[in-house]
Amino acid sequence: MMTINRLDLADARLLIEGAAHKAREIGVPMCIAVVDESGTLIAFERMDGGKVTSVTIAQDKAYTAAAARKATHEYNAVNVPGSLTFGIHTEVGGRLSSVGGGLPVVVNGEVVGGIGLSSGTPQQDMECAQAGIDHFLARRPQG
Amino acid sequence: MMTINRLDLADARLLIEGAAHKAREIGVPMCIAVVDESGTLIAFERMDGGKVTSVTIAQDKAYTAAAARKATHEYNAVNVPGSLTFGIHTEVGGRLSSVGGGLPVVVNGEVVGGIGLSSGTPQQDMECAQAGIDHFLARRPQG
Amino acid sequence: MMTINRLDLADARLLIEGAAHKAREIGVPMCIAVVDESGTLIAFERMDGGKVTSVTIAQDKAYTAAAARKATHEYNAVNVPGSLTFGIHTEVGGRLSSVGGGLPVVVNGEVVGGIGLSSGTPQQDMECAQAGIDHFLARRPQG
Amino acid sequence: MMTINRLDLADARLLIEGAAHKAREIGVPMCIAVVDESGTLIAFERMDGGKVTSVTIAQDKAYTAAAARKATHEYNAVNVPGSLTFGIHTEVGGRLSSVGGGLPVVVNGEVVGGIGLSSGTPQQDMECAQAGIDHFLARRPQG
Repeated sequence: MMTINRLDLADARLLIEGAAHKAREIGVPMCIAVVDESGTLIAFERMDGGKVTSVTIAQDKAYTAAAARKATHEYNAVNVPGSLTFGIHTEVGGRLSSVGGGLPVVVNGEVVGGIGLSSGTPQQDMECAQAGIDHFLARRPQG
Repeated sequence: MMTINRLDLADARLLIEGAAHKAREIGVPMCIAVVDESGTLIAFERMDGGKVTSVTIAQDKAYTAAAARKATHEYNAVNVPGSLTFGIHTEVGGRLSSVGGGLPVVVNGEVVGGIGLSSGTPQQDMECAQAGIDHFLARRPQG
Repeated sequence: MMTINRLDLADARLLIEGAAHKAREIGVPMCIAVVDESGTLIAFERMDGGKVTSVTIAQDKAYTAAAARKATHEYNAVNVPGSLTFGIHTEVGGRLSSVGGGLPVVVNGEVVGGIGLSSGTPQQDMECAQAGIDHFLARRPQG
Repeated sequence: MMTINRLDLADARLLIEGAAHKAREIGVPMCIAVVDESGTLIAFERMDGGKVTSVTIAQDKAYTAAAARKATHEYNAVNVPGSLTFGIHTEVGGRLSSVGGGLPVVVNGEVVGGIGLSSGTPQQDMECAQAGIDHFLARRPQG
């Protein structure tokens, strides 16, 4: 038997809250998705003005980051012609995202979920995703 | 050009809040999805203990209710062998749901979005979806 | 080698025009799709107020009627438990529609395309599809 | 609640008319799709001789341009190995198009829909899409 640690809904809300705060600060309404360690959606919010395509993209980034335990921009770096990883972005029906903006959420060295942002530039999406994680780690109830 | 009214994120949160309150009351953790009038996701929450399959089902119910402007249990009633509507549930890649638990959200006689619940019995899902709408209509800011 | 007769764009517009005229007459804004004999879309119109789900359903009805050379309500009649055809509506990824509202377009005994309507009841959809065909047959340029 | 402006069917027909006129001028029969601001199809025409694959591609270009509020050729420019956006074209089940020929339709600074063309070179598709927008903006009824 295994015991798994994963984000709960209260954690997911903290992640979204921190990411949305940064998104408002930089003036880009975002789609924000949080998934658990298995890649399954826990919570999602489309800020007023977030893009329709980003509803899916944010979820796919969060899924990739959690389920592959790797930031989507790390996949981006190796998803270049000639690299043995090239083409990874069409896997899992195209859900595996190599576009910056998906980060694994790590607690005590363990991936417990993922967060994905979409609607800005990849750099903006990454910045807001990180802000969500920082907010979560600072505010989460300590067990 | 047409002018359309749709739910915003604050509205979606009210809908989820009301549905989740009822779900806690009856002791069934739910997946709760709210979409706009075009069927596009605005907000989603999986209560701790909500089912994995329900992540998709709740979204499909909300999509159907808003985009077809019809409660999913109304499709259920006509989706029987011999009815001319039989087989509708496999449409739109199977997203069109005829399982009870999806309700259109109507404001001033106009469908402005939809709510979908999943994890309980269809009857429980329907009850919680209605509770979300009641809460939203009672609390929403009046324009 | 084979020679195939199929609807052209001018024909498709006549079919849509006739169907839309009837839809306005009965007061139900419809989605209207016309495909060629291979099931490939030629023209589509969503009347203002047509349902979002009907965008796909109308196309699937037209596809089924032309590609299977059978009205969707004829599939409906045999898509009942116990019939050897039961379950046909999940075929072709769920595109094969057994919901009334799709009719083959027949010229000189040959299926040259299909028309599919969605947004009303199946009976209304069927009535408007037939009106489209009647209009087309009355007005089409004779070769 | 939010209020959204979107193209209606009369607008969509103007967009198609302008694009088709240019397509005839350059001698390339096109598939032409117009969607609303949520990416949902309003109208579609395949000119006689338009390509079968283009039925889907034109719709995906229009969807992308409207739902991501970005011309598909703009995605093309950043969809190169080494860019943080690389791989975006497989998102949303591959519907997100980075092939030139999809343009957002902007009225009063707001994206109200999208137009997508396919069957020519991307340059030809882009030229005809722009011609559709120019025609629409010149002829549309002023509110």
